[in-house]
Amino acid sequence: MAKITAVSPLAPAAFPALPVIEGVKFAAVAAGVKYQGRTDVMLATLTPGTVVAGAFTRSSTRSAPVLDCQAKLGHSSAEGAAILVNSGNSNAFTGKGGVASVEAITAAVARACDVPQMRVFTSSTGVIGEPLPHERITAVLDTLAANTKVADIAAAAKAIMTTDTFPKGAAASVEIGGKTVSIAGIAKGSGMIAPDMATMLVYIFTDAKISQAALQSLVSAHNEVTFNSITVDSDTSTSDSLIVAATGASGFSVDDNSSFSDALHGVMRDLAHQVVRDGEGATKFVEINVIGAANDADAKTHAMAIANSPLVKTAIAGQDANWGRIVMAVGKSGAAADRDTLGIRFGDVEVAKNGWRSESYSEEAAAGHMKGENIVIGVDIGIGSGKSTVWTCDLTHGYIDINADYRS
Amino acid sequence: MAKITAVSPLAPAAFPALPVIEGVKFAAVAAGVKYQGRTDVMLATLTPGTVVAGAFTRSSTRSAPVLDCQAKLGHSSAEGAAILVNSGNSNAFTGKGGVASVEAITAAVARACDVPQMRVFTSSTGVIGEPLPHERITAVLDTLAANTKVADIAAAAKAIMTTDTFPKGAAASVEIGGKTVSIAGIAKGSGMIAPDMATMLVYIFTDAKISQAALQSLVSAHNEVTFNSITVDSDTSTSDSLIVAATGASGFSVDDNSSFSDALHGVMRDLAHQVVRDGEGATKFVEINVIGAANDADAKTHAMAIANSPLVKTAIAGQDANWGRIVMAVGKSGAAADRDTLGIRFGDVEVAKNGWRSESYSEEAAAGHMKGENIVIGVDIGIGSGKSTVWTCDLTHGYIDINADYRS
Repeated sequence: MAKITAVSPLAPAAFPALPVIEGVKFAAVAAGVKYQGRTDVMLATLTPGTVVAGAFTRSSTRSAPVLDCQAKLGHSSAEGAAILVNSGNSNAFTGKGGVASVEAITAAVARACDVPQMRVFTSSTGVIGEPLPHERITAVLDTLAANTKVADIAAAAKAIMTTDTFPKGAAASVEIGGKTVSIAGIAKGSGMIAPDMATMLVYIFTDAKISQAALQSLVSAHNEVTFNSITVDSDTSTSDSLIVAATGASGFSVDDNSSFSDALHGVMRDLAHQVVRDGEGATKFVEINVIGAANDADAKTHAMAIANSPLVKTAIAGQDANWGRIVMAVGKSGAAADRDTLGIRFGDVEVAKNGWRSESYSEEAAAGHMKGENIVIGVDIGIGSGKSTVWTCDLTHGYIDINADYRS
Repeated sequence: MAKITAVSPLAPAAFPALPVIEGVKFAAVAAGVKYQGRTDVMLATLTPGTVVAGAFTRSSTRSAPVLDCQAKLGHSSAEGAAILVNSGNSNAFTGKGGVASVEAITAAVARACDVPQMRVFTSSTGVIGEPLPHERITAVLDTLAANTKVADIAAAAKAIMTTDTFPKGAAASVEIGGKTVSIAGIAKGSGMIAPDMATMLVYIFTDAKISQAALQSLVSAHNEVTFNSITVDSDTSTSDSLIVAATGASGFSVDDNSSFSDALHGVMRDLAHQVVRDGEGATKFVEINVIGAANDADAKTHAMAIANSPLVKTAIAGQDANWGRIVMAVGKSGAAADRDTLGIRFGDVEVAKNGWRSESYSEEAAAGHMKGENIVIGVDIGIGSGKSTVWTCDLTHGYIDINADYRS
């Protein structure tokens, strides 16, 4: 890697203690795919009967592993399953060779873990357009398979990092009728780009018992308001992958359980926030709440236009309560808006109301809010009841430092 | 202004000599709208019979002067007309007070210049959300009207600058049947944002004789491939305005004259390029040519996704031939693409072909192109015959410096 960077100032104090999820085992190893002196391949094995759901990048140039995972989702199975992830090379834009690499890896994992190849899910993250030296991965599979442990999720979180400045984990437990259902998840993403683009990878495990259809439905719904509601720089990886696996080991069925749904939502939101907190060069964590839009989709369009505006993001970096740039972003979003009903708040400070600077507006109070580490921007479009919340970070010299760097 | 900045390294050597357009007179004055010690109001008076066409920002929060211009366009008239522009205050997001300011200014210009109020077009550029002190403008109108000169277009170009680092002008002459038809235009835009957002304002004058409908048709068509094909940071001003006035003084009718159309197109493209060359913090002028898309609209969507990608723009700033980021941008654009037909060139260097790194690819040759000041990125989507060209600049520390600054 071109650069060693300090941990993000927005990072949590420590990697959390994650509960053991019965039915899942982890192993990590240094295979030397690209990086030296660190683990770069992780394996998770999943007990027979495990249900797998997921969500993936919408990029039309998505990678071979993503296409392979998408083809395999949706099957329930009484057989075991496995997830294998490498960092250092994304196997994206690698043509037929990339497809052959996925075939070679998934076949080898199936053999080493004694699971059907249809139940082997892989992800690759790192440099784009370089052939993946998959023989370095297949060479370590027997070692990996022989050394899986139920408690090694933290090691897995570290092995999937590329230029993340901290490993990301989150967990929740739900007490349902005297039984405990646990959820534990890990993620990587939005760390530095060098040597190439960041990718968001997320793996969440639970011992809940749930049908594939019910799990996929929850994952899709929560994904829209968590991982699909964050942005660092508006750029979308070719490899973004979210996989959620439910082993059923707790024996407790959660198909229509709102407590479980809420807990899964919470874990997904927590990991999504950590991805933003590791945003390239980030010094501020920004929440954007849009209300009063014509509908929820319009609200999200407005919120994303604000979150992706370089002028808004640089103003936040400069601790500048520059509400004119919020007006601009709403105006350019393409979603319905009325200049004369627009209201804007920075934190608790009302900045504008009914299309005009608020009479009570205090530049000093607004500037005070902008000095904090957590910025909340509230926008009332004033024409309906659509709402949306998205999260982003500021745009700083650190982002330029990281991304204007040579790859090599 | 918060900052004094050197002239953009991409600026032309000098302001060009612009031809006199018979039927147009200019004057500029220091009215102290906001700036001190410089001209900040310009007036252009237009001879009776002048035809006026235009194009404006699509922002849903557009300013009062923009709405007023849009309501007035499309009328042909045997009476005179006038254009008045102030810098320092954009009169945007100023509610009913903003509408009253436009009314006061246009009424005063009509009186001072003896033209109908329906034929007075105004633009305002500068800080957003502050009441426009229009009495400072109306106070100088008699002086302005009494001092208009046919040759003072350069003074007008300077008066409309906000944080531009150089005044922008372009011209063309067309010999048609022994007669000369002249075109002269000025623009401002994409200079620094402090104290607030940049706005693109363009005024083009010609002595051609043309119907309003024909002129509007030319302006709309050329606008799509010139001013609507440039981007600095994807952010759209609430005040962008392009006004084209044809005085008819040459006596030569150009309603269906392709030479005139080409010349007007050339002036518009030249001014559009100058706006990009004054992009905030720009050190590279970037042309993006997309071919082989499903249709022209898709090609433009791909080109704009590349041009607006922070990862692409920072790679260019870093002189990095990072073609993976081009793949990423094509993938995220939402327009149709096929990973396995994609081709990419940097200048004359073929980087990728049919979805895979080109066999002839030389990192050294590609890096050589990236070291130049003018970068050309060619993308062949490989699925159709749609094409589009857009222009942008790189994303540098200079952009952050300019935009993360406090407004005051």
